[in-house]
Amino acid sequence: MDERVREYDNIIIGIDPGTNVMGYGLIGVKGKKTVVMLAMGVIKLNRMEDHYLRLRRIFERVSGLVEEFLPDEMALEAPFYGKNVQSMLKLGRAQGVAMAAALTRDIPIAEYEPRKVKMAITGNGGASKEQVAEMLRRTMHIPEDQMPHFLDATDALAVALCHFYERQKPVPFHGATSWKTFIAQHPDRVK
Amino acid sequence: MDERVREYDNIIIGIDPGTNVMGYGLIGVKGKKTVVMLAMGVIKLNRMEDHYLRLRRIFERVSGLVEEFLPDEMALEAPFYGKNVQSMLKLGRAQGVAMAAALTRDIPIAEYEPRKVKMAITGNGGASKEQVAEMLRRTMHIPEDQMPHFLDATDALAVALCHFYERQKPVPFHGATSWKTFIAQHPDRVK
Repeated sequence: MDERVREYDNIIIGIDPGTNVMGYGLIGVKGKKTVVMLAMGVIKLNRMEDHYLRLRRIFERVSGLVEEFLPDEMALEAPFYGKNVQSMLKLGRAQGVAMAAALTRDIPIAEYEPRKVKMAITGNGGASKEQVAEMLRRTMHIPEDQMPHFLDATDALAVALCHFYERQKPVPFHGATSWKTFIAQHPDRVK
Repeated sequence: MDERVREYDNIIIGIDPGTNVMGYGLIGVKGKKTVVMLAMGVIKLNRMEDHYLRLRRIFERVSGLVEEFLPDEMALEAPFYGKNVQSMLKLGRAQGVAMAAALTRDIPIAEYEPRKVKMAITGNGGASKEQVAEMLRRTMHIPEDQMPHFLDATDALAVALCHFYERQKPVPFHGATSWKTFIAQHPDRVK
């Protein structure tokens, strides 16, 4: 276990799954505002010809990160559409093995579309990967020499931070998501 | 561990993955001809609303079967096309978690298209699920009262048996898969 884990109230692992390169990024949260980058990197898969070896590598690496950083939550960058059924099946398998590494340890999973992640980080859903990386560098005070060569790593860090922002959003009045729910929950308060 | 495991030279687990119902079937092989059904059944997922709970259930159940029967190989029924990208992504995830349960234990995986499985079992690639079930019942001498209610279970048993047949096929002359390969491997034998 990484010793820094004890310093944080909450740890989020972000995953940007791909069948050639898979990115990961971990953030530590202290209190309501302090967010620190704990680790980020990529799992290179394109040198492996065997599809099953790739899946195994993903499972082992994600499991290793989960054991090292004991994350409380997993956030996944997940496109909801794709070029063709073949690539979506492969992507689904890569996501599946990454998810299995979290699910076996009771870690809840959240998914975000790429556009939503970009919007949360930069304020622009159409931002480039470079713009996302630059905003992360500034927001999280990451030293220039710690910035990764592969933008799959910053993309993964971005989805972890996006999940943190999402959880920070104020909870609606009385936990009701609409007036209809509110009235159903509090019939005595409707005159 | 199931005590019967010791009696067989080889055990194959067949999986028919689905996001609503997942079928499984295990066969034990003794020598070159004896093939016995060890277990078959389904993992019902349609009662669970949560997509992640379904994936977790698949991983846990397949892991449990692997620990109980210590299979040497996994055979997966895997369609290579689908209705739409959404359903293929979900199918890929279900396959991914089932595969993870095997990959973490170094169990090799083989995949077969539904048409190929039907062909191997019944001699007809367009056979119905009922015809596949009936042929399995006869070939493996399964008592009527042990036949499952869900045809996902017999489909899974079918892919395990298909894999057994596939391995039984004679290896091509000198390991060459074509004359081209043969000539490349044995240039001295070409006059």
